[in-house]
Amino acid sequence: MQSLSNYHQLIEKQIADSTYPNKPIELYEPIAYLMAIGGKRLRPSLVLMACEAVGGDIQKALKPALAIEVFHNFTLMHDDIMDNAPLRRGKLTVHEKWNKNTAILSGDVMLVEAYKLLLDVEPTHLKQTLEIFNNTAAAVCEGQQLDMNFETISHVSIPEYIEMIGLKTAVLLAASLQIGSLIGNADEQTQNHLYEFGKNMGIAFQLQDDLLDVYGDPDKFGKKVGGDILTNKKTFMLISAIELAKEDLLTELNYWLTIKEFDESEKINSIIEIYDQLGIRSLAELEIDRYFSIAIENCNALAISQLAKDHLLQFAERLMIREK
Amino acid sequence: MQSLSNYHQLIEKQIADSTYPNKPIELYEPIAYLMAIGGKRLRPSLVLMACEAVGGDIQKALKPALAIEVFHNFTLMHDDIMDNAPLRRGKLTVHEKWNKNTAILSGDVMLVEAYKLLLDVEPTHLKQTLEIFNNTAAAVCEGQQLDMNFETISHVSIPEYIEMIGLKTAVLLAASLQIGSLIGNADEQTQNHLYEFGKNMGIAFQLQDDLLDVYGDPDKFGKKVGGDILTNKKTFMLISAIELAKEDLLTELNYWLTIKEFDESEKINSIIEIYDQLGIRSLAELEIDRYFSIAIENCNALAISQLAKDHLLQFAERLMIREK
Repeated sequence: MQSLSNYHQLIEKQIADSTYPNKPIELYEPIAYLMAIGGKRLRPSLVLMACEAVGGDIQKALKPALAIEVFHNFTLMHDDIMDNAPLRRGKLTVHEKWNKNTAILSGDVMLVEAYKLLLDVEPTHLKQTLEIFNNTAAAVCEGQQLDMNFETISHVSIPEYIEMIGLKTAVLLAASLQIGSLIGNADEQTQNHLYEFGKNMGIAFQLQDDLLDVYGDPDKFGKKVGGDILTNKKTFMLISAIELAKEDLLTELNYWLTIKEFDESEKINSIIEIYDQLGIRSLAELEIDRYFSIAIENCNALAISQLAKDHLLQFAERLMIREK
Repeated sequence: MQSLSNYHQLIEKQIADSTYPNKPIELYEPIAYLMAIGGKRLRPSLVLMACEAVGGDIQKALKPALAIEVFHNFTLMHDDIMDNAPLRRGKLTVHEKWNKNTAILSGDVMLVEAYKLLLDVEPTHLKQTLEIFNNTAAAVCEGQQLDMNFETISHVSIPEYIEMIGLKTAVLLAASLQIGSLIGNADEQTQNHLYEFGKNMGIAFQLQDDLLDVYGDPDKFGKKVGGDILTNKKTFMLISAIELAKEDLLTELNYWLTIKEFDESEKINSIIEIYDQLGIRSLAELEIDRYFSIAIENCNALAISQLAKDHLLQFAERLMIREK
């Protein structure tokens, strides 16, 4: 099996070799721009890795892997409009660099491009690949809708939150593994175990992202720490704090959640202080471990070589310790 | 073969029987809302008609026909955001009734729904159906981008305009016929003739729409007459007038195209006066006839029964005389 950096290189080459029509330039230039900004290429790497893990031919998985990455970037292009985000990985978002209409339409054609790339799978696997992809694409949209809904509703429970990140983030990691293994001719049980492995790993990954937003090293995390705190984002951390806080601590928490004008550092430090008093960090770490352990079980249940399992676990572990 | 109104009924039943997930309601309700607003259901009717015209089983074409109608309505949902349109067929557009984010995301999942419905075609036809659909979906986006570009560039030529309406409107009518005939097991030549028939009919249809905006009976046309004139939309009519007008007439035309504040009726009547003096109406009618004649030739070249040809021609003729 290839190394993780090899998968990354293979994906980058696929992206660099992609060509789009010359015109209308407004429609296709933003696609090339966003794809070139970079990123960890986790999802297409998972497609390739799963294909190899089940003994498949990685060459047959390259275009479908690219399809998944194009789809992921399509969701970023549209999510950035909806979230009014000015920057993506330190560069201007498409709707900022061009405009909203361009970002809508260019995103639409990007989704179609993803479907074009999927047609590269062998005819015998085409229908099932598309079924997985369609269900996943709809789930990702559902997750984004729930995420937006959570901004305005007052109470979100932990199970509701886990469901949302499952849809918005984890199912695409899961589907990447399933599609990769399908292309590698895996049986249904292997596909399902890989799907569950990806889903649980994805939930652990997102929970870790929430944790790092509060307790991460900003140099390693790559994002400003406290961003979720400033916007009152209902993450696992905040939801837990709201459920656990009592009396004075609850009063103080509500004060920071309702105040409109504040000093940013003061709000971040005050909320972290509340989290510390409630033991939210340990709680989040336990929850991450819980999902990560299930992911490891899913992986161990696979009827594939130990070498292939080690490879998948190594990937998962690198994902989890990456920025702590 | 079935009558046109039968096709319409079959499509309406498919739409009425469609079910979407219950939640998130914000994501799926706008889809049901827009699909229920109505419309002529031209595109899915063409799928069914082409399938029957080549001797195919119409039952196999129902879901793919619905897919085309769902896709068409997806483009309307997103185009309405981009065009800032308050109404669609007399009802609030999705971004007005809900909001822009909902219209973006609901549109995205609607495109995925179209792909889900397409999976109903027989496995032997799946790849080709998706190839046609993908290319068409990308072309429709390209047409919309060109249409938006035309708003801000000063000179648009007639061939550029025909290319734009070909992409934005005609290729989807063409693809509807091709996919319907493919499902009906037509050979490649028959598929191609039907595609060309649809494309030329589509261009004639859009040119007629431009003409009706100026010379149509508002009661029959269903839209306010003069809408294109008020917004200086570069239609076949206006592009031709700009090319043909000389001296005083050109000065007057430019006056109306540049003035910011005006009485609406006065502007409409003045532009129509200019069109009348330049013979734009006859010019447009000739252009419509030109494309419509090619469409008839395409139809006559088909190796199908005369009855089936008559049916297709009858459809085309009803389309063309519908609102004059």
